[in-house]
Amino acid sequence: MRSKVEPEGRKRTFTEEARRRQIVECAITTIAKEGLAQASLARIAGEVGIAKSVISYHFAGKDELISEVINALLRESNQFIKGWVERADTAQDRLRAYIEASFAFMAEHRENFAAMVDIWGSFGTVEAKRAFNATAYDPCRRHLEGILKAGQDSGEFRAFTPRTMAATIQGAIDGVMLQWVFDAQAIDLPECAAELTAMFDLATRS
Amino acid sequence: MRSKVEPEGRKRTFTEEARRRQIVECAITTIAKEGLAQASLARIAGEVGIAKSVISYHFAGKDELISEVINALLRESNQFIKGWVERADTAQDRLRAYIEASFAFMAEHRENFAAMVDIWGSFGTVEAKRAFNATAYDPCRRHLEGILKAGQDSGEFRAFTPRTMAATIQGAIDGVMLQWVFDAQAIDLPECAAELTAMFDLATRS
Repeated sequence: MRSKVEPEGRKRTFTEEARRRQIVECAITTIAKEGLAQASLARIAGEVGIAKSVISYHFAGKDELISEVINALLRESNQFIKGWVERADTAQDRLRAYIEASFAFMAEHRENFAAMVDIWGSFGTVEAKRAFNATAYDPCRRHLEGILKAGQDSGEFRAFTPRTMAATIQGAIDGVMLQWVFDAQAIDLPECAAELTAMFDLATRS
Repeated sequence: MRSKVEPEGRKRTFTEEARRRQIVECAITTIAKEGLAQASLARIAGEVGIAKSVISYHFAGKDELISEVINALLRESNQFIKGWVERADTAQDRLRAYIEASFAFMAEHRENFAAMVDIWGSFGTVEAKRAFNATAYDPCRRHLEGILKAGQDSGEFRAFTPRTMAATIQGAIDGVMLQWVFDAQAIDLPECAAELTAMFDLATRS
């Protein structure tokens, strides 16, 4: 998807980037509060306190804006997790850091996940679902697979299929997140984080 | 939500029930194939091979139909899982049966879960999210909590918070399901089922 402001690949100015970020942040808030269906460009513009035409200047339409919202949500979360993982030394500690960071980020960014879940279900076509999968899941699973393989190479982890283990770890994190988005009272995030960390530690250990 | 055909609480006839079931099944197929947004009553009627007015005779509108689709999807899956769990003798076996049945049902009903994920994201308001949570998650978690508490009482399981463990088990199952709905090729369901069964067996054991 091409942005309106760079028809010939022109680099965006600092001010344009800042304005786009602001619009994306207000889009997240609006989607989290009112749902994707209700989050019209007009409402988002109202949240930013700008005219709708300003959004139209920066984004080709709602689809491009939503696509940028997804990218921003995933980028922020992935960077946070990567930061924690990189500070850990062993594969075991890196796996623990991955899970703990995921839950720590979640706890501080409920709005992000409410918006994500809302966008999640909005992909009607198989192609849209695949595209989302490629953006959202593949990078997470690859990151996890890297940690798992390194741990097997160093002898810290037992033999298992890294791809499958990565899928179950990411699955457990996302599945708990989902229940928590639907009802924060029903889920004790720190307790779930502790259980899952202990469990995957036990499950991967050689 | 009240159905049009029972304005004074009249019991539906066998034929009416059969027709409603048929409409619900075709709604699931249409939503799974084309997405919730595209699944208009007219399209669903086309899938059944009836006039749209026949759907309107049986359901007050799309909202009532979707609500019945959710109930049907959850009922079918829960009954299947309950059947497997009830045939197991010990708490350990019942927990294993719960996880294995969840994945076995998934593998045979991809369409159901594609439709469910699509509906999942369509709840814009907090009230709608809460209502879905009450219908979808609470019964699953309660079923799991019952198994876990019984295992603690019998001494098979160690001390942990049943509510939290139930949330992580259901979370792991749903999270893997979600990745598989988005990309069947990326996920090896039987391998994930085996890993999770072994893992939660280890994690709960006293």
